[in-house]
Amino acid sequence: MVVKRFSLHWEVGPATAADLTPVEFVPAQVPGAVQLDWARAHGIPFPEFAGNSAGYRWMEDSFWLYRARLSLLTLGQDEQAFFVCGGVDYRFQVRLSGRIVFDYEGMFAPIEIPLCLEFAPESILEILVFPAPKSHHNGDNSLQANRSTKPAVSYGWDFHPRLIPLGIWENAAVEVRPAAHLCAVETSYLLDNALENAELAVDIQLNLPAVSTIRWQILDPGGAVVLEQTAKPDSTRLRLSSRLENPRLWWPNGQGDQPLYTSRTELVGRAGEILDGREQRLGFRRIRLVRNVPDWDPTQDDFPRGPLIVPIVFEVNGRQIFAKGSNWVSPDIFPGRIDGETYRPLLQMAREANLNILRCWGGAIVQKEAFFDQCDELGLMVWQEFPLSCNYYEGEDYLKVLDQESRAIILRLRGHPSLALWCGGNELFNVWSGGGMSEQDLAIRLLNRNTLEMDPTRPFLNTAPLYGMGHGFYVFCLPDGTELYQYLPQRRFAAYSEFGVSGPSPVNILEKIIPAEERFPPRRSPAWIARHAFGAWDGSPGSWLEYDFLVRFFGAFSNLEEVVEAGQFIQAEGLRFFFEESRRQKPYCSLALNWCLNEPWPTAANSSIIAWPAQPKPALDKVRLGCRPVLASARPARLRWKPGQIFTADLFILNDSPQALSAGAVEAILVLDGREVRLMTWDYPAAAENINITGPQLRFELPQLKSQRFELVLHSPGKPELDSTYSFLMA
Amino acid sequence: MVVKRFSLHWEVGPATAADLTPVEFVPAQVPGAVQLDWARAHGIPFPEFAGNSAGYRWMEDSFWLYRARLSLLTLGQDEQAFFVCGGVDYRFQVRLSGRIVFDYEGMFAPIEIPLCLEFAPESILEILVFPAPKSHHNGDNSLQANRSTKPAVSYGWDFHPRLIPLGIWENAAVEVRPAAHLCAVETSYLLDNALENAELAVDIQLNLPAVSTIRWQILDPGGAVVLEQTAKPDSTRLRLSSRLENPRLWWPNGQGDQPLYTSRTELVGRAGEILDGREQRLGFRRIRLVRNVPDWDPTQDDFPRGPLIVPIVFEVNGRQIFAKGSNWVSPDIFPGRIDGETYRPLLQMAREANLNILRCWGGAIVQKEAFFDQCDELGLMVWQEFPLSCNYYEGEDYLKVLDQESRAIILRLRGHPSLALWCGGNELFNVWSGGGMSEQDLAIRLLNRNTLEMDPTRPFLNTAPLYGMGHGFYVFCLPDGTELYQYLPQRRFAAYSEFGVSGPSPVNILEKIIPAEERFPPRRSPAWIARHAFGAWDGSPGSWLEYDFLVRFFGAFSNLEEVVEAGQFIQAEGLRFFFEESRRQKPYCSLALNWCLNEPWPTAANSSIIAWPAQPKPALDKVRLGCRPVLASARPARLRWKPGQIFTADLFILNDSPQALSAGAVEAILVLDGREVRLMTWDYPAAAENINITGPQLRFELPQLKSQRFELVLHSPGKPELDSTYSFLMA
Repeated sequence: MVVKRFSLHWEVGPATAADLTPVEFVPAQVPGAVQLDWARAHGIPFPEFAGNSAGYRWMEDSFWLYRARLSLLTLGQDEQAFFVCGGVDYRFQVRLSGRIVFDYEGMFAPIEIPLCLEFAPESILEILVFPAPKSHHNGDNSLQANRSTKPAVSYGWDFHPRLIPLGIWENAAVEVRPAAHLCAVETSYLLDNALENAELAVDIQLNLPAVSTIRWQILDPGGAVVLEQTAKPDSTRLRLSSRLENPRLWWPNGQGDQPLYTSRTELVGRAGEILDGREQRLGFRRIRLVRNVPDWDPTQDDFPRGPLIVPIVFEVNGRQIFAKGSNWVSPDIFPGRIDGETYRPLLQMAREANLNILRCWGGAIVQKEAFFDQCDELGLMVWQEFPLSCNYYEGEDYLKVLDQESRAIILRLRGHPSLALWCGGNELFNVWSGGGMSEQDLAIRLLNRNTLEMDPTRPFLNTAPLYGMGHGFYVFCLPDGTELYQYLPQRRFAAYSEFGVSGPSPVNILEKIIPAEERFPPRRSPAWIARHAFGAWDGSPGSWLEYDFLVRFFGAFSNLEEVVEAGQFIQAEGLRFFFEESRRQKPYCSLALNWCLNEPWPTAANSSIIAWPAQPKPALDKVRLGCRPVLASARPARLRWKPGQIFTADLFILNDSPQALSAGAVEAILVLDGREVRLMTWDYPAAAENINITGPQLRFELPQLKSQRFELVLHSPGKPELDSTYSFLMA
Repeated sequence: MVVKRFSLHWEVGPATAADLTPVEFVPAQVPGAVQLDWARAHGIPFPEFAGNSAGYRWMEDSFWLYRARLSLLTLGQDEQAFFVCGGVDYRFQVRLSGRIVFDYEGMFAPIEIPLCLEFAPESILEILVFPAPKSHHNGDNSLQANRSTKPAVSYGWDFHPRLIPLGIWENAAVEVRPAAHLCAVETSYLLDNALENAELAVDIQLNLPAVSTIRWQILDPGGAVVLEQTAKPDSTRLRLSSRLENPRLWWPNGQGDQPLYTSRTELVGRAGEILDGREQRLGFRRIRLVRNVPDWDPTQDDFPRGPLIVPIVFEVNGRQIFAKGSNWVSPDIFPGRIDGETYRPLLQMAREANLNILRCWGGAIVQKEAFFDQCDELGLMVWQEFPLSCNYYEGEDYLKVLDQESRAIILRLRGHPSLALWCGGNELFNVWSGGGMSEQDLAIRLLNRNTLEMDPTRPFLNTAPLYGMGHGFYVFCLPDGTELYQYLPQRRFAAYSEFGVSGPSPVNILEKIIPAEERFPPRRSPAWIARHAFGAWDGSPGSWLEYDFLVRFFGAFSNLEEVVEAGQFIQAEGLRFFFEESRRQKPYCSLALNWCLNEPWPTAANSSIIAWPAQPKPALDKVRLGCRPVLASARPARLRWKPGQIFTADLFILNDSPQALSAGAVEAILVLDGREVRLMTWDYPAAAENINITGPQLRFELPQLKSQRFELVLHSPGKPELDSTYSFLMA
């Protein structure tokens, strides 16, 4: 390509007003954040390992001026120069030699500013970033985000410090383009009802008509050209279309492969030289949200009646699947330092844990391209929320910004096969979110409209949770002490959009973030509190370490390692139970997402199953086991037992795979103080694909044990991939 | 005004193909219906009193050609002639001297066709009406309407014969306009949050700029000019705006007055002469749908949880009110013969019955202007559904028609203060409606978008019922025999969008529609079945006469008069209980609509409380009593008692008025075989506006009675408007 990109050498400094020049400039990394630049220059520890983030507090209320000289550039004949940037966080102006050339509120819209007319040697490009948006100034809290599209999480959350990034968070460069070049290229398709043909179209925008030829190719996943067209455009807009017969279909993880085609569009000069070109990957699939059947509880099938649950079954390529996944939070406080390598290990772990969906929660940013590229490759469906969370969003100015920002987000992401669902935001209809928005709110209706107009084949949900969906709880016992194992089987929800069990971070992380003198026993000390181990959420006073609960369940601890092991045990067994139980409630239930997969900074305890930046907790492996396509599963009546109680557990075969299962047997063995007690052999029948099998109930009177723990082993002779082992506590 | 309107002399005839001229033409009434014209000309009885409607069956499958000569017209200098028509039902072409000048699918969009260029003496204007739209031809049923905006009711319903009107159903005329004239004028307003100021705007479209002056006046409800502006337009579009301070607010019936302002826009010539003018009435009010509080059952306030009910409380001018009303069905099989006089007695009765809302159900047409004008005057809020009902509506062609038709409907109605709510249609999310549409369907999303874009301050509901809303049942007992009095107090819904108790029509009507030899005893004979007395609805085999049930409750009948009295008694007492019970469930419940107010033709039995065309059944008066703003109310445990049972009834004062209530007393008296038994005097406290008071429970062991009925009288000394009398049956 003859399009050339040049990085600029940026510096940045704080200013107390929009029209003042900073007294001090420091070198700026782009993409990045003003806070990181300032901290780097002044030797301030980065927040993830700083004692606390209070030292960063002033930065959110300052103006910040980025500047760079354009002097490096020399333009060839007919070349045109542009300043291009994927996004600036949050309210900003771009100035060229002192003149404002762009003025915008919002971080999700890309910028393209022609420099041709303005460009002169020694020109200075400036980006003035305004203080973080706040709807009020009565104390720091996430309500301040309720009139902006700034992600609410950075205003302070139960797993995130108060720290509001500002600055150029996406790539920025000067692009020098030849006289004829491509302005925008987008390939789209429609699959026919039988999923046998894809009607492909590419929409091309050029800066000049008629001077060159357009060549459009479709390459199959192996790189072979399967379709090719050329055209001589006679205007600056052009649409080519073609039919691809029998495209290989893209499937979520566990349901099939992820073949990715390529749409290549090139601008070819008279001598056959390639002047400009774009590539876009395509995955052919159809994703719908359909109604759960039965869609109401038959025991309550009585007049008067209305619908009870929103459609929440993912139907992919005509097949209804069980969506099992996790809530994704941004993997860094600063989006500016996230790149593909930040995502790679986390997404790989999600795939290996047998997950097929991630809910990109509305409290966080909309992730960068690399995230969606990798999800496309890994078969991870993405439930993408707009940046609204736990607030009442309204107002004319806000709606204007939301309109612009949502259109930019839709335009950027709609080509990704992994993108399965748009959602208005997080918990917007719950009363705790500023009183609760509703279907009547203009922000919700605007998002419904924009997604309909720009992306009509993709489902849209107003928010999560919605009618018929369960959401929470977040620790192992309800406030009244009832165990998860006891209450979840009594619930009847079509989908669990969030469900969490918290667990402590690994000891190596705690050693970095909790000073030695505070470490044991854990207590309400500054470091434990700053890292969310105590009082993070008023729904559970002990959140997220739940230390009092752990002592109640396990007895007194002798050291930190024991605490961590106990807490991680609860999280691992609890989340495994959650996934298996939600799958047992299939087909009424069709979706289960634990809160949450990852975390943005090192916490002391959190519901995440991967500690920052990418260190698995034991729960990840137990989630993997509970999410295996086919497994022998037990529904024990509780986790913690007493001698003399009748141990009971209902047996099942869970199958959400597209393969049928042949008949077989499951041996159920209790391991008590190292001794195996064979309880029964269950001969289960064959079953069709995606069908569970209900088995017998184990019943056994528990003796007095020496050990504090015992195990139940389910063994399927000849099918070791079905084997399961469950651990229990003895009071 | 110098705009002149001329009627045309129409004739109409059937044709077997679009390009064939009818063999026979008959005189046509416009507005009207081809079926009525044909019947009138051929002496066929009109369907309302015809033995059955099968004789009309062929007409729905024919083409029909209307024609009229334009020869009457002579145009003055600079005058322009237009053919204008409010709507043609359903798919049609307009031809001028044989050339197609307009081609449209849909009945709700007005037509305006310039005749200037085409006009010549002896020109012929033709309107070709296509056969009724049908998505399939495998038998007659309302599924055939699932790809059109044709109201589904006329394809056959449980209270409506199979009879699909076709033809010019709205006014049609030739309009001759002066050289300069108004094309479109619309006045709108925005109230500020405090409801103290209205920002008014008038949007004017002219055919020519600058030749004349625009005068815009706002007249108060007494006719005095309170605002006036003049402007000299320099283009064909003009917006004038102004502020009206402290406008008098429009209120629903029972909550305040209905002051109507007038916006008058005139085109004034150089000599001060009025060239053209339009008037629009304005009612200033703000209507929102807000969340019910509490919005979930506190006894179920437990994780995991999502929202349970959609916002369904009508907040009018900042005041949350209890919406009590009725479902409106079209008052005639043929919309073409409906006019203001058809509506007037029905709407007057609704107002006098203390109703404040009518749900214009999606199975029927969107009513004519006179309906909304009268609702504006009477304080009847209108819940207006788009013409979708009990089907799965989809498909690209359908969506195009729905888009056009819905825009026409919104544009026509959005100026009416009585219009309170847009709704996508009837029962669209219920499984019995073609499997059930959902929020994901493009038709629903399109309606949400169009109402947002064209009418953003008015609420929109996807359909009814929705989450948290009750809908049905339609006869006094559930299929298991449980009485309404027993089960409704156990239900917990935020709104009852439909609730019915069927009752027979008055004897004078039965005598017209049931031949003498079939009349008594009622049975599954042709006339009773055709008039919906038996087997009308598979949810209740005896619908709508419920004869077996009546015999079970009342014993054998001796004549038709006794049957009618018994059935009407059940309907009257049942519906009164329904309204009072839903009001007792306030504030969790905020809306109650009985199914239905009226009916489109004479039925033998139906849930309507007014028989066709406008004859009240006894239920209307009992609804009036149950909907009084303030009343002493009893919740008896059942309607039908046995001797020896303990009669129980919970006492309440119901108040949904904007006035507080002073303290007082209620005497409770049972009247048993004419003997008064005083049970208690309840001294109730004072209470604020719109607040109910819970009283004691009456308990009394019932003796053996001679009479089959007995009564409970609640008497409030000094406040006779609160007095209530309830009747009961003794087994």
